[in-house]
Amino acid sequence: MSGTAPTVAPVLPIRGQLRPLGLDEIRITGGFWAERQSVNALATLEHIEYWLEREGWIRNFDLAVQGDLARDRRGREFSDSEIYKFLEAMAWEIGRTDDPELESRFRAVVRRVAAAQEPDGYLNTKFGRRGQAPRWSDLEWGHEIYCIGHLLQAAVARARTRPGADDGLVEVARRAADNICETFGPDGIDGLCGHAEIEPALVEFARVTGDDRYLAQAALFVDRRGHGRLSDVEFGREYFQDETPVREATVLRGHAVRANYLAAGVVDVAVELKDASLLESVRNQWKNAVARRTYVTGGQGSRHQDEAFGGDFVLPPDRAYSETCAGIGSVMLAWRLLLADGDPRYADLIERTLFNVVATSPSADGRSFFYTNTLHRRELGTVPDADRPSLRAAASLRAPWFEVSCCPTNVARTLASLAAYVATSDDEGLQLHQYLPGTVEHRLADGRALCVTVATEYPHDGEIRVRIDSDDERPWALSLRVPGWAAQGATLTVDGDTRPVGPGVVTERRTWRRGDEVVLSLPMAPRFSYPDARIDAVRGCVAVERGPLVFALESVDVPGVETVDELCVDTSQPPRLFDGRVTVRCRRGRPHDHDWPYRTDSADSAPVAGEQLDQVPLVAYHAWANRGPSTMRVWLPTTN
Amino acid sequence: MSGTAPTVAPVLPIRGQLRPLGLDEIRITGGFWAERQSVNALATLEHIEYWLEREGWIRNFDLAVQGDLARDRRGREFSDSEIYKFLEAMAWEIGRTDDPELESRFRAVVRRVAAAQEPDGYLNTKFGRRGQAPRWSDLEWGHEIYCIGHLLQAAVARARTRPGADDGLVEVARRAADNICETFGPDGIDGLCGHAEIEPALVEFARVTGDDRYLAQAALFVDRRGHGRLSDVEFGREYFQDETPVREATVLRGHAVRANYLAAGVVDVAVELKDASLLESVRNQWKNAVARRTYVTGGQGSRHQDEAFGGDFVLPPDRAYSETCAGIGSVMLAWRLLLADGDPRYADLIERTLFNVVATSPSADGRSFFYTNTLHRRELGTVPDADRPSLRAAASLRAPWFEVSCCPTNVARTLASLAAYVATSDDEGLQLHQYLPGTVEHRLADGRALCVTVATEYPHDGEIRVRIDSDDERPWALSLRVPGWAAQGATLTVDGDTRPVGPGVVTERRTWRRGDEVVLSLPMAPRFSYPDARIDAVRGCVAVERGPLVFALESVDVPGVETVDELCVDTSQPPRLFDGRVTVRCRRGRPHDHDWPYRTDSADSAPVAGEQLDQVPLVAYHAWANRGPSTMRVWLPTTN
Repeated sequence: MSGTAPTVAPVLPIRGQLRPLGLDEIRITGGFWAERQSVNALATLEHIEYWLEREGWIRNFDLAVQGDLARDRRGREFSDSEIYKFLEAMAWEIGRTDDPELESRFRAVVRRVAAAQEPDGYLNTKFGRRGQAPRWSDLEWGHEIYCIGHLLQAAVARARTRPGADDGLVEVARRAADNICETFGPDGIDGLCGHAEIEPALVEFARVTGDDRYLAQAALFVDRRGHGRLSDVEFGREYFQDETPVREATVLRGHAVRANYLAAGVVDVAVELKDASLLESVRNQWKNAVARRTYVTGGQGSRHQDEAFGGDFVLPPDRAYSETCAGIGSVMLAWRLLLADGDPRYADLIERTLFNVVATSPSADGRSFFYTNTLHRRELGTVPDADRPSLRAAASLRAPWFEVSCCPTNVARTLASLAAYVATSDDEGLQLHQYLPGTVEHRLADGRALCVTVATEYPHDGEIRVRIDSDDERPWALSLRVPGWAAQGATLTVDGDTRPVGPGVVTERRTWRRGDEVVLSLPMAPRFSYPDARIDAVRGCVAVERGPLVFALESVDVPGVETVDELCVDTSQPPRLFDGRVTVRCRRGRPHDHDWPYRTDSADSAPVAGEQLDQVPLVAYHAWANRGPSTMRVWLPTTN
Repeated sequence: MSGTAPTVAPVLPIRGQLRPLGLDEIRITGGFWAERQSVNALATLEHIEYWLEREGWIRNFDLAVQGDLARDRRGREFSDSEIYKFLEAMAWEIGRTDDPELESRFRAVVRRVAAAQEPDGYLNTKFGRRGQAPRWSDLEWGHEIYCIGHLLQAAVARARTRPGADDGLVEVARRAADNICETFGPDGIDGLCGHAEIEPALVEFARVTGDDRYLAQAALFVDRRGHGRLSDVEFGREYFQDETPVREATVLRGHAVRANYLAAGVVDVAVELKDASLLESVRNQWKNAVARRTYVTGGQGSRHQDEAFGGDFVLPPDRAYSETCAGIGSVMLAWRLLLADGDPRYADLIERTLFNVVATSPSADGRSFFYTNTLHRRELGTVPDADRPSLRAAASLRAPWFEVSCCPTNVARTLASLAAYVATSDDEGLQLHQYLPGTVEHRLADGRALCVTVATEYPHDGEIRVRIDSDDERPWALSLRVPGWAAQGATLTVDGDTRPVGPGVVTERRTWRRGDEVVLSLPMAPRFSYPDARIDAVRGCVAVERGPLVFALESVDVPGVETVDELCVDTSQPPRLFDGRVTVRCRRGRPHDHDWPYRTDSADSAPVAGEQLDQVPLVAYHAWANRGPSTMRVWLPTTN
């Protein structure tokens, strides 16, 4: 119960259609996400710390104190940010579990970071010391401001979960934020960072500290972007969203992580400053990005070269980039828009992205990660060495660590704070956005204490039972999201009455009694999904989905088949559940091998139809690549 | 007539099924390629020199003499090679046209290059001087050996076109080659270059100088590659073909220019050393690359990130890379294999690549160039600034110059030496591989002087008239290539008799009299080409070809259509010639716009069929993007 204490949440807007609940108001008691959180806590955090130490990225802070940075520093220019994301993940986890051992590890890292801060608040291990490039000398690629953004987000997590703690992180962050404001304020350097991140961080830090200077600085950074203040680069200024002012842009573009982080910060600024036109611009950018530049998994970014959104409908499944961090950025953005607008489509994308991108990145044991998330692997991969950082983040093979290792820490902080995305409140009652077994306890603004318990095996089963565990004479509203994919067949049962419900929000306002139950039943028959004809890369293919999960054909499930590319799916038979698995009917095709792969006779280029395979089992996309090397495809060519 | 003087050709193998003719034995008198050569001579060479001076890349050699390199050097690490390719282009052009002004420009550049050579023969403006990185300190990326390779090729061109000239280029090259042999010989550094190029260059330099040390060094470099002597990099050692020994590789892979240059050098080594298994390995790599990793244009390399071949059948038309230089490398490789084996399929690929990649790169005025050659442009491009080097080589927009500007000089040297690829000889007679208006004069090994004149408007027309302009009592063989695309309908007329001929080589051996004529008639009806079903990226699409030319739909040809992506082609009606242009019947489709581009109802994702457009004109792919910003596609979705 939050009572009148500040809400323990990553994002606390001053206004909006919906209000976030505190992480302490939501308990995830089992199921898919509880398992993920448990692996995150028990394996991933330790794994991250091991690699941060091993690669010397925490030690860089010690070197700063010793004066040996110029000589001995290790890691890329943004490695400091991994320590901050690790701190953020630990902070949320400490809030969730009160783990004293984690608390002491947290404090130890904070001490090392704090010791490296310079007297004026500047904090970065890559720039500014003797023998290093000067501070702010490479705004395009240096990531100095970006790193401070992640420091602030770590401090926000700490301040919200342990207000008044004496570890000093919040003070370190405040001095760093002040240094940014002094350096880049209205009278300072007229510049901005090549990687957005400081914008949402400064706004949230303003919310935590109550100091509007940080909000003003965020707004200033937002205004500055889009006018070509950053140098032109090979990928164009679009890469860091500096080619078009935010207000004039019509779609998310350029580097997909940068684009989402920036847009998240812009929503924050717009909400705080009541800037309706700015908010409308981001809403429109999001809408177009989702309608034209998003994979069926929710993944974003189709270009390897610059980790960027491609053009409209350029969504190749092989060599899909779909960076894990872009998925996390997309969840951050959609969550802020959901709080602002209340539109359930934002929660739809969050669900899709959590299940099919964020959950896909870590291996089952939480000790290796996809950096990119391809939708088609043609050749058996080689499992990366568990004892070496991978040079090849883009290979779509889970590796224990990368030279650019943004994704593991990003996954960790997201999973540790996952409860944030489950439910919200408004003056009328509660809204459930994501379905998992757990309890939600919340005191409305008028003081009424509400409590509901959700029982479900979602996403394996479509039945979601919401039991009221509080009593109040006054009516209140319980809202449930009916996902966009549940176009037909969803029903709601209240008090014995069952009625069909369609995608959107279904709200029951009544005087609820302890023990009352609402059952949302979602249609869980597996289904084919057909791509827009403009997505050239998957013409003539279908994907298979069930509930919020995207499925894939993985070669380890089809003994005797060398590659999944030999199979076509027969769409005249819908996908079915068989023996607990989603299955499709396939036909195997033997390709014609020619000297030249373009033929004047169309029959010459088609495969020779081979045997029919009934009940070929598919795997949930998030679970693929956990059973050894395999080939895989999400988009399956059809037999017609 | 070459008589007993050395043949004036870029490649002179010691043995092989076919022997190259000298550039002085072939005169291109008109038509498509004469026009290209003329623009190359009159505009492109001057354009290149302007930019080389303007960007300071020639001046780097002056700075070396002055001792100011470390401070003032400009350009990327491989910029020296552009000067050498420019010298090579000028050398061939001087041989072709005897232009005295060009000769003096050539000598002026050679003087500046020569002055920068160090006493021990080392020559590079990026490494080795005070304040620069040490020599050979970055074999992966430094391009030092690569640059010397291009120096040698320039010297080869000079030695063959002006044997004994006193400009000194050959001596400069010899000292540089000696330095390489001393440094990287059997007792030297056990290393190799991250970018293959020295291999074919050393072999040809050995052929020019008669010094087998250079051949042995080339063989040593070939042997060294593929064992991981180069450091691992983000793209993997496959990027520079250092992951698998050449002998064990089964397909061209990694960086597409590096792969082709290397394979060309390996053929050279194998031929000189009579190494049949080595030659067989390259033959097999080529065969698989052509059958699985080559665009319909002949272009190679589908990945932007590492400019590399993708996996088998990964050939996306949008964001095709198809680097111009990879096309040139492919011509170099196929030519060497053709000389070795005599198989007309090599000449088929040369023809396809020359018309659809090499000819595509330069604009009509020869002053701007595609670096990459996309097969699908979705959005109107912005024409790059004519007065600035482009940062965005990968944008598939013709630009006057690039920061990495390998393609303009590569196109220039290829066009200047283009006659090399037209015809060959053997003991029996002449073989014509490429068709253009011109004359071929050649003295057989037994002393007989042969002369033929070709009259044709190919590729606009399919009639190729070969007239014999020499008399000899003894029979000799005239061989003509029937292109692979001419599967049906080709005929050969000799002495009034017309007979059908199929793809391959057709040979007429007889006693030819002056005035005898052979007419090869190739079927020039435009045709659809269907892709192998494994090329996911163009499933459900067709390309249109006519003769050796690939065609494209360009938006400037369809008034009122916003983007070519609105059109589908009706394959029930074959493409036709209408009003001198290749045309197809299309149907316009109005796409459904949805919030989410994946639909459970397939009808929901298909466009609404709109009006039928008859006789939509296509443009030869090489000619596209010469009429202002446009959208374009080679692969056209079909209406079914």
